Amino acid sequence: MVTAHPLVRLLPEAAVDDPDVLAAYRHDRASFCPSGEPAVLVRARSTEEVSVALRWAYEHEVPVVPQGARTGLSGAANALDGCVLLCLEKMDEIVEIDVPEQLAVVRPGVLNGRLAAAVAERGLYYPPDPGSMEISTIGGNVATNAGGMCCVKYGVTGDFVRGLQVVLADGRVMRTGRRTAKGVAGYDLTSLFVGSEGTLGVITEITLALRPAARRPLTAVAFFPGPADACRAVAAYLGDGHRPSVLEFMDAETVRAVSALVDLGFPPDVGGVLIAQSDAGAAAADELAAFERAALDCKADEVVVADDPAEGELLMQARRLVGPAHEALGTSLVDDVCVPRGRLAELVDGLDGIAAEHGVRITCAGHAGDGNMHPSVIFDDTDPRQVAAAQAAFAAVMDLGLRLGGTITGEHGVGVLKRDWLARELDDAALWTHRQLKASLDPRGILNPGRVFA
Amino acid sequence: MVTAHPLVRLLPEAAVDDPDVLAAYRHDRASFCPSGEPAVLVRARSTEEVSVALRWAYEHEVPVVPQGARTGLSGAANALDGCVLLCLEKMDEIVEIDVPEQLAVVRPGVLNGRLAAAVAERGLYYPPDPGSMEISTIGGNVATNAGGMCCVKYGVTGDFVRGLQVVLADGRVMRTGRRTAKGVAGYDLTSLFVGSEGTLGVITEITLALRPAARRPLTAVAFFPGPADACRAVAAYLGDGHRPSVLEFMDAETVRAVSALVDLGFPPDVGGVLIAQSDAGAAAADELAAFERAALDCKADEVVVADDPAEGELLMQARRLVGPAHEALGTSLVDDVCVPRGRLAELVDGLDGIAAEHGVRITCAGHAGDGNMHPSVIFDDTDPRQVAAAQAAFAAVMDLGLRLGGTITGEHGVGVLKRDWLARELDDAALWTHRQLKASLDPRGILNPGRVFA
Repeated sequence: MVTAHPLVRLLPEAAVDDPDVLAAYRHDRASFCPSGEPAVLVRARSTEEVSVALRWAYEHEVPVVPQGARTGLSGAANALDGCVLLCLEKMDEIVEIDVPEQLAVVRPGVLNGRLAAAVAERGLYYPPDPGSMEISTIGGNVATNAGGMCCVKYGVTGDFVRGLQVVLADGRVMRTGRRTAKGVAGYDLTSLFVGSEGTLGVITEITLALRPAARRPLTAVAFFPGPADACRAVAAYLGDGHRPSVLEFMDAETVRAVSALVDLGFPPDVGGVLIAQSDAGAAAADELAAFERAALDCKADEVVVADDPAEGELLMQARRLVGPAHEALGTSLVDDVCVPRGRLAELVDGLDGIAAEHGVRITCAGHAGDGNMHPSVIFDDTDPRQVAAAQAAFAAVMDLGLRLGGTITGEHGVGVLKRDWLARELDDAALWTHRQLKASLDPRGILNPGRVFA
Repeated sequence: MVTAHPLVRLLPEAAVDDPDVLAAYRHDRASFCPSGEPAVLVRARSTEEVSVALRWAYEHEVPVVPQGARTGLSGAANALDGCVLLCLEKMDEIVEIDVPEQLAVVRPGVLNGRLAAAVAERGLYYPPDPGSMEISTIGGNVATNAGGMCCVKYGVTGDFVRGLQVVLADGRVMRTGRRTAKGVAGYDLTSLFVGSEGTLGVITEITLALRPAARRPLTAVAFFPGPADACRAVAAYLGDGHRPSVLEFMDAETVRAVSALVDLGFPPDVGGVLIAQSDAGAAAADELAAFERAALDCKADEVVVADDPAEGELLMQARRLVGPAHEALGTSLVDDVCVPRGRLAELVDGLDGIAAEHGVRITCAGHAGDGNMHPSVIFDDTDPRQVAAAQAAFAAVMDLGLRLGGTITGEHGVGVLKRDWLARELDDAALWTHRQLKASLDPRGILNPGRVFA
């Protein structure tokens, strides 16, 4: 007879140790990230249940892997052998939308798209819009400091987090931050937990700043002979002081892949595409006229301003189909480098060389306005030589990003996938600082151990 | 014969132990904050000199008090007995202004106003504008996460800090953050050091995000019968989704005090004033029309939109004169509470009761759009009874702020002045977290010990 896991007895309604159930929670959507055999899954429904699980794990020195909807791309939510999988999906309450103060209080399991829709109904706007927004949770977005298409104008998830409720490693419950617009009372604990990928505490409530509803955007698309031309247009347009609400890039391979899913009517021989939006109301037409000038100055063959919102929406839909389109090409290993936007052209030019050197296909799309690109290495994962080549190409892309003054991850996070690379990006003192902070808040090393850094 | 301090021998060109020189560096501008007798002053001119000073202090377990221009209002830069005063004023180099990437790299001693002017010459905008901007340093602004009038639209200092160079307690040099627009590689160390008031490390270089030059603002002023009417107008106007670039409040006492310095031509019986600006270009007139409607709905007697920029500038000058005007009234103890803007009216109403109860005068002005008010207790510091009453009234204001769901400090910081109050704002777990973080990065407790929290 098998004895139930102790947490099943402590939390009979939330914890389960049936291996068939556990299997479905073992990993997120990252490639090449190992996942272990969890001992138990706790689908917490309250802060109190999270606290009980952590108290038990702390006492018994058992690793805990917090997770949301497991849509991450770096393996940070993958099970470790013998761990407690602490899933926050069921804590999906929108606690409050305060219209006059323009803030929301939510539990971590609320889906991003659900929150965005709920606040839109109240005349407000929650900008952070990762590509996964319909399937990823706010808790996961906060834990990875997720980005999206809004960032070029509105910033990343962390820019909207005013305060948190966090359960510490030993089960104690803490509040960070505040509801007010400003506040400097003590250290910025909120920002320390944002993006910490479950290694410092478990987030159980989030207070988010909202904005007034954005105005209906105007959309334009520019077609370039090559990807570097498009990148130069990005630098020229933004360097001139414009503030588009979207500025996205797709290379030729990406356009072909997306066109296989939806008829875009793009020129067949396009070498690079930029999609720009402006939600600046009366100034939007001027913003897009400036975009058109910058694009034409950078050799664009054509710039089209969408005449009606449906046309604009089709363009945005094309951008949102990049993920599925890449998946249709084969297994893809999605990178997430971010460089100063003046170096974007060098980045995309460098991809060709990397693809040739390693004998793989690399497609590229991304949030060009932020310098944040997602080169995707496409390969056949049944061919060991291609797998090795893909991994080498992936590493070469990060190396190139660092050499261009960039970072190895603009919005996906480090997790397992890029852990060894973080040690290359940080100096020794910064890595020491990470280890000290981690040890100070998680002295027994139970919170997502080995993730982000070793 | 007196032996020179060891740091005078190690850093002969930067360190001085002449008591007459030290005296001038002993304290910032806070009231009621003790300052001790420093052992030595190091006016560092380079990161290397900072590192030498910290290495020595670490080895000998001597407290170090970092300071900028000592314009702070919470005593965080005040000397401790036997300390090393580590002044960064002379590290005043603007290392780089990168126009295409819209960022600047500066040393901590650069004056805020000097940087703002330098980037404006290049067609860019550095928004953070604390009242002290002409005399305070960027390093001090970062160490306290300073605010200003820009925050209602543009955010606080920390929102513009992309990366730091920090010297750790033992003298090692660390880089945090990045130059790119986005990045999630590892913990947000940058935000941890921003606002840490010299307790975690010494900031020696700052990478700042800039914005495109703002458009010339339009300015309006609204006159209300009472302060609470003005506060209700703030909540109504912003709650309606408007984004002014300035929204400032002055009460009747403040208007009288400022009018003694400059002829404002305000109505003599005004009970509360709001000054609003919009830099929204073509939409600015609409933004101010909405301001006028909100003000009139909240009983404003009159709203005047400035016809020309000079008139607008006079209004802004009036707001900037609040500090000097209050000083002319007597000794003033400036508070810095921040509440949800819907509670502002309760805050200003509560001030009357506090003033009456403690037999002191309280004037109030502040960044109403953020809910961040600066009630000032005016008193005669030669009268011990008034001193005690002023301190009690100051405490009562913070207590009221907390009861209204606010914070004890919106932008000035904790320092010495509000240390005991921080322990009331934070819960036990958050206070424990502060102590753990501090101990992990400053294990010998030499960095500004006893400031912010005990």
